[in-house]
Amino acid sequence: MAVPETSVPETSERLDYYRRIGAHHILPLWVETQRFVPMRPTPTYVPALWRYDDIRPLLLEAGRLVTAEEATRRVLVLQNPALDGFQGTTRSLYACLQLIMPGETAPDHRHTQSALRFIVEGEGAYTMVDGERIPMAAGDFIITPSWTWHGHGHDGDQPMVWLDGLDNGLLALLDTTFFEPARPGGAAATRPAGDTLARFGSNMLPETFRPDRATSPLVHYPFARSRAALAAMAAAAPPDLCHGHKMRFVNPATGGDAMPTMGVFLQRLPAGFRGAPYRSTDGAIFMVAEGSGRTVIGARSFAWGPRDIFVVPSWASHAHEADETAILFSFSDRATQEKLGLWREERP
Amino acid sequence: MAVPETSVPETSERLDYYRRIGAHHILPLWVETQRFVPMRPTPTYVPALWRYDDIRPLLLEAGRLVTAEEATRRVLVLQNPALDGFQGTTRSLYACLQLIMPGETAPDHRHTQSALRFIVEGEGAYTMVDGERIPMAAGDFIITPSWTWHGHGHDGDQPMVWLDGLDNGLLALLDTTFFEPARPGGAAATRPAGDTLARFGSNMLPETFRPDRATSPLVHYPFARSRAALAAMAAAAPPDLCHGHKMRFVNPATGGDAMPTMGVFLQRLPAGFRGAPYRSTDGAIFMVAEGSGRTVIGARSFAWGPRDIFVVPSWASHAHEADETAILFSFSDRATQEKLGLWREERP
Amino acid sequence: MAVPETSVPETSERLDYYRRIGAHHILPLWVETQRFVPMRPTPTYVPALWRYDDIRPLLLEAGRLVTAEEATRRVLVLQNPALDGFQGTTRSLYACLQLIMPGETAPDHRHTQSALRFIVEGEGAYTMVDGERIPMAAGDFIITPSWTWHGHGHDGDQPMVWLDGLDNGLLALLDTTFFEPARPGGAAATRPAGDTLARFGSNMLPETFRPDRATSPLVHYPFARSRAALAAMAAAAPPDLCHGHKMRFVNPATGGDAMPTMGVFLQRLPAGFRGAPYRSTDGAIFMVAEGSGRTVIGARSFAWGPRDIFVVPSWASHAHEADETAILFSFSDRATQEKLGLWREERP
Amino acid sequence: MAVPETSVPETSERLDYYRRIGAHHILPLWVETQRFVPMRPTPTYVPALWRYDDIRPLLLEAGRLVTAEEATRRVLVLQNPALDGFQGTTRSLYACLQLIMPGETAPDHRHTQSALRFIVEGEGAYTMVDGERIPMAAGDFIITPSWTWHGHGHDGDQPMVWLDGLDNGLLALLDTTFFEPARPGGAAATRPAGDTLARFGSNMLPETFRPDRATSPLVHYPFARSRAALAAMAAAAPPDLCHGHKMRFVNPATGGDAMPTMGVFLQRLPAGFRGAPYRSTDGAIFMVAEGSGRTVIGARSFAWGPRDIFVVPSWASHAHEADETAILFSFSDRATQEKLGLWREERP
Repeated sequence: MAVPETSVPETSERLDYYRRIGAHHILPLWVETQRFVPMRPTPTYVPALWRYDDIRPLLLEAGRLVTAEEATRRVLVLQNPALDGFQGTTRSLYACLQLIMPGETAPDHRHTQSALRFIVEGEGAYTMVDGERIPMAAGDFIITPSWTWHGHGHDGDQPMVWLDGLDNGLLALLDTTFFEPARPGGAAATRPAGDTLARFGSNMLPETFRPDRATSPLVHYPFARSRAALAAMAAAAPPDLCHGHKMRFVNPATGGDAMPTMGVFLQRLPAGFRGAPYRSTDGAIFMVAEGSGRTVIGARSFAWGPRDIFVVPSWASHAHEADETAILFSFSDRATQEKLGLWREERP
Repeated sequence: MAVPETSVPETSERLDYYRRIGAHHILPLWVETQRFVPMRPTPTYVPALWRYDDIRPLLLEAGRLVTAEEATRRVLVLQNPALDGFQGTTRSLYACLQLIMPGETAPDHRHTQSALRFIVEGEGAYTMVDGERIPMAAGDFIITPSWTWHGHGHDGDQPMVWLDGLDNGLLALLDTTFFEPARPGGAAATRPAGDTLARFGSNMLPETFRPDRATSPLVHYPFARSRAALAAMAAAAPPDLCHGHKMRFVNPATGGDAMPTMGVFLQRLPAGFRGAPYRSTDGAIFMVAEGSGRTVIGARSFAWGPRDIFVVPSWASHAHEADETAILFSFSDRATQEKLGLWREERP
Repeated sequence: MAVPETSVPETSERLDYYRRIGAHHILPLWVETQRFVPMRPTPTYVPALWRYDDIRPLLLEAGRLVTAEEATRRVLVLQNPALDGFQGTTRSLYACLQLIMPGETAPDHRHTQSALRFIVEGEGAYTMVDGERIPMAAGDFIITPSWTWHGHGHDGDQPMVWLDGLDNGLLALLDTTFFEPARPGGAAATRPAGDTLARFGSNMLPETFRPDRATSPLVHYPFARSRAALAAMAAAAPPDLCHGHKMRFVNPATGGDAMPTMGVFLQRLPAGFRGAPYRSTDGAIFMVAEGSGRTVIGARSFAWGPRDIFVVPSWASHAHEADETAILFSFSDRATQEKLGLWREERP
Repeated sequence: MAVPETSVPETSERLDYYRRIGAHHILPLWVETQRFVPMRPTPTYVPALWRYDDIRPLLLEAGRLVTAEEATRRVLVLQNPALDGFQGTTRSLYACLQLIMPGETAPDHRHTQSALRFIVEGEGAYTMVDGERIPMAAGDFIITPSWTWHGHGHDGDQPMVWLDGLDNGLLALLDTTFFEPARPGGAAATRPAGDTLARFGSNMLPETFRPDRATSPLVHYPFARSRAALAAMAAAAPPDLCHGHKMRFVNPATGGDAMPTMGVFLQRLPAGFRGAPYRSTDGAIFMVAEGSGRTVIGARSFAWGPRDIFVVPSWASHAHEADETAILFSFSDRATQEKLGLWREERP
């Protein structure tokens, strides 16, 4: 559109002109070209890290202060420090922590936002997706696809916590949000537990299967299997200079991303790993599944341990380091960017 | 995420809690659920129409007030009346009008934003895309693909005006903007005029062709051909109840949208057409190529004639009416929404 | 499966064994490994050329000897000299010449074979494809898609001849042939002439279009446009060492081959062109649209002029030479081979 | 091409004409139209069944009569009773049984044919695919992709037998066969055992993975997992009227068939299942993995038990019946037919 360096001097004649066209809801591009087309990504949000040790007591306090019934979902939003209230963890994505207490249920609903769960702690809770009860175990990655009925329940005896990842910022910009609350009897199981995993997680598809949505028909990626895949990858080849051993969760019906808007990854950094600096256009949210280390983002170092959460903005150079073998879960809008031909990376 | 109806009463204990977690950049989702997940799209921008008769004198005045050299691109942005300065015509898209005067040139540059041109008036100007001089005639649709060098020039003797459509809002949200200014000698033609149209516009592809970008290799869709296609469609079948006869510009290498982020359309409304109400999730920007009529958007009627521009927001019910045979050019972020599984429409 | 060099000596014990297993319809692979898995393609068909000057009188004679009514289609099959009767021009494909006399009609029918027409001479005839009358002019490429109703008629006053290309050999191997004869009233036009070309040949698609078959919705590729595309290509860049300027006809709804089984090409050899040797795994059938020259296939040279037809077998090295500017139409099963990951080429 | 009912009377004039054009390698289509375009598939091969109890002693006898060194691969071809020697089990496919004795090895080679293995009996053998040793257990489905180095070895102490499925008939028709024998040192393992399964069989893909071939990067589909998938499918929903519970093996990088030319399936028939008649255009080869029953093909009933092999021709109506719970493995050229838009089925 415009060369960023341009600067058009203001004269009284021009200022008068700007005022007159403004009355027609018309603006002169040439006074704002740098903002309009910057030379490179200039995110308005910043790197940040939340320590799980800090958050956990606050989550449990929420469990006492607000009932599940009142809150519907007892969710804490990790708000980017540089963004205003409820503007997201990055511009396009939200990371939240959800707490469910023993015996609680969250009623069925559905929305066009895609949601991912990465299970942080506890056992005995489940997500009901499209009539199937999906058991949750620490490290599992679970999807509630766009416009799919889902609710939660908890039959265990300890608090259960998971990370929610959502594409609300993107859907808000696109004005494509729809929501529908619980139907009477909507949360009843109509399929046996484990059905989706067996039918779609075994490198086979039902002979008559035809995809009817953009999201994976497989909604449950157990940690046991994902972790083993990383271990095998680590046994077979040296780590990538930047990423260690990194895998992408995929939709078995397409080989593409598990969700249409978000790319979801799991990576393993061997003990002592000192990653080379890397940057890409997808701002990403990481949760530490195992291990400890730090990530140097720009000039700042963010030390992390198990269950900590951190944000790497778009095009921010960053390098991972692991003191002990670490596993990082992450998600970003890379799936969107790749579909639109916009994703770009820079590596040594 | 949350049932919109929820309302969690504020107590002093809760307010204290909210303040304490706020210090950690944590927000309680349950106080903002309606905003977070509305029941349906709630665009923050509004329907609007710009009359070309109003804009044209202002454009020509810009031609006197600001030199091409100062402005780089002499572009007026059509700013949605409900959005703040430089926030877009819709949330994701910009519609602008660009003026080039006889003898002027706009230097080469490139950016990751996709840009479309729809030629409004004049003759003799050209866009140089990737080393090929693309002639411009009224009604032509021309693409400057993402990250492709392009400049403009004008060998005619009258002012030349075109509509620019850009996906800046979307790229800003995704933080994927890159820009590179003119290279020395960058604007020199390296391919004969008409090359792209002949090579890629004839339902053939070079035997060795492999797509190397997400945008169409065909960048010029002459109005003569597009208009004839609509006429043939009109001769062969009755108009669609809502759209009249409507076609989508496609990438001949894929059959998909001509640009990765934006869908671009041309539709013909026969004289006397009274369209049924329609809505879809992609807010669209229309320019009238020919004819006159009106579009009823929600409760308001927007009368239009040749070269007028109007905006229909996401999920706004609207109906087109034509007094004389009309041709409407339009573009929206539908290409993005369809790729992400988000596009939705409602029709009688 | 087996190393071609293997040779297992025959002993009386082994011969007895072979006889005994033969009674169970079981064969020992090790006695036939060279045939089973040869080192490289060993086509059982040969290069050949048919001179149109030889064929034309025979075609016209057929017009006297057999009525259209008797023959249904008055078609002469170009039988590969090395294959038995009705085994094809190559193993997978047939090239035929069809004659229709003024006033004749060929009744509607449909079959799962894909058929292409390349118009050789005459004017005034038409093919009726799916209710649309497609006019035929010399050099036009016309498709009758798999399982689509089609018939022919001739309103002109001279004999009309076209080349038929069919995938019968492939469909015979796959046992996927279905045929359905004329319906009462089946050949009536239900769409205006030129409809398909305007709707699908203009780099636009109807807004509601969804492909419902594997073949292009565009069935008519007029020579005027194809020839101009080649000329533009020739003006823009030097010829390919082997192919001159070569283009592939594509399905505008996908960017892939116009037909699912056959690739169809048009190439231009500038006067004086001396092509480098080339080979690929798709045996091809060429018809000379314009010009004269020769093609050296292996050790033999085949001189050709307008309307001559020749066959280049799979993996046969060949080089084209043009004395005057030539245009060659060709088709092969490359579309099938590429879909199956089997296509291979070798070039200097 | 032609209406099958046509019959053009032979006259002496016509016979003379046919003889004269025959000298030019030209045939009159109208004398052979029924064969050229039959009304429906008319396979030249027939239903057949091989009892494993009959074959097993013959296989073991081959183990004594021919050394692995002599045979390179000790393979018995199941020749369709209606086809001539080495013409295939169907027209496009071969089913073979391969025996490897303890301590034997089969040297590395590669060919463009795709090969599948379905392990019949024994343990301790392995296939080396692309430098990885793939262990074989009964019921496993293993791929040796087109043009990929592979060899076999056997560290166990009992004979090992597997079913080979190959697309030789199709590749012969297309003349796309290439073969390359063992390289010195070619069979050495370069990747750890289990690598492919972990990396590509866990619903994840390496972050940097880009498919470089048409075949699945996953080459090992263990029976334990496939069998469990069928059991889960059976627990979740009633059986299909024709197929029981049937799944297709897929390429995790695309969601399409595991091999480009062949579809591979596993299906479970509950005890007492009486299937409805079914037919499709892909002739299929079945091997019984478990259970007993019969398949009625046309008017004949073929009783089967574990490890028996049978062929159902294209478009032959057939119905499966199971006395005890049965699992059938099968493969066909359906993957080819679907890519070419030719596959068709008929069901109640």
